[in-house]
Amino acid sequence: MQKFVNLPEDACPIIADHFSLLVIKKKENLLINGQVCRANYFVEQGCLRLYFTNDQGVEQTTQFAIENWWLSDYSSYATQQPSTFGIQAVENSRIMAISWQAQETLLKQLPILEKYFRLVYQKAYAAYQWRIKYIYDYSKEEMYHQFLKNYPEFVQRVPQYLLASFLGFTPEYLSEIRKKSIS
Amino acid sequence: MQKFVNLPEDACPIIADHFSLLVIKKKENLLINGQVCRANYFVEQGCLRLYFTNDQGVEQTTQFAIENWWLSDYSSYATQQPSTFGIQAVENSRIMAISWQAQETLLKQLPILEKYFRLVYQKAYAAYQWRIKYIYDYSKEEMYHQFLKNYPEFVQRVPQYLLASFLGFTPEYLSEIRKKSIS
Repeated sequence: MQKFVNLPEDACPIIADHFSLLVIKKKENLLINGQVCRANYFVEQGCLRLYFTNDQGVEQTTQFAIENWWLSDYSSYATQQPSTFGIQAVENSRIMAISWQAQETLLKQLPILEKYFRLVYQKAYAAYQWRIKYIYDYSKEEMYHQFLKNYPEFVQRVPQYLLASFLGFTPEYLSEIRKKSIS
Repeated sequence: MQKFVNLPEDACPIIADHFSLLVIKKKENLLINGQVCRANYFVEQGCLRLYFTNDQGVEQTTQFAIENWWLSDYSSYATQQPSTFGIQAVENSRIMAISWQAQETLLKQLPILEKYFRLVYQKAYAAYQWRIKYIYDYSKEEMYHQFLKNYPEFVQRVPQYLLASFLGFTPEYLSEIRKKSIS
């Protein structure tokens, strides 16, 4: 937070008071489709994914969050209505969670954090504008290579079937592209 | 803004001072690919689109903004680096524009607007999370029907070749789907 805004000296304990630390195992769920998304999650260590389950019962990953990223279903979180997404740990993770209510209280106590969240969301919004451009502009193969170029370590780190799902293709197709790149 | 935050009584003239009113004609450009996106645009009346030009020279629309929506290339706007997008008027429009510098000054003068923009971006971010879900989950035909259900007036209002581009298909395909729905 200090990177984005100048926090007052006494801010740290006030902020810490509003968060809970969740130590969760790989594949543990923070949110299940149909539940209200109660919290905004900050990844201290590990990796989370946002996903939905389609009519054929297949899970489709739409977003990842690694260290220093926030993740939530922001429709459900903002309205406190049931979510159509799930949030699950991709690795054993340490997550700082702030409930909707706690965030409202914290923002009243430390209004400087409005700027922090404004900048976080502005960045995420900009990333989505780019992502839609990639989806329209790139073939599936180009999409993989672009992703590999932008996030080389992440491609090594995440299970390939989840990466394939996120990029919108089958694990078999991803495996083919990778073989082609190596040969 | 009053709908989102409680503004102090003297806020209106301060806010107005930081904006310019742009009265622009249909197809007029507010941003061209390669320029720095200097402003954040609020649609008072009319419609804007965000688009990019692909390698084949075809313009691909990725976002629309109608009355009471903001639009900018938020990567270029935040970093003040050249944009890969263009912003163009879809109709004759009245646009309230705030430059990056003016927005920074305004937010310092009226920090309550940090909350306003935090909520605007949070909403836009949530809308993008949904949009990615639609792209992965729906066939092109379902996408059109979902869009028609959510924004019936907008579908009537916007030129069909732009709507087709936004939904990711050809004008001919859109025309086919529409004929099928009517018959």
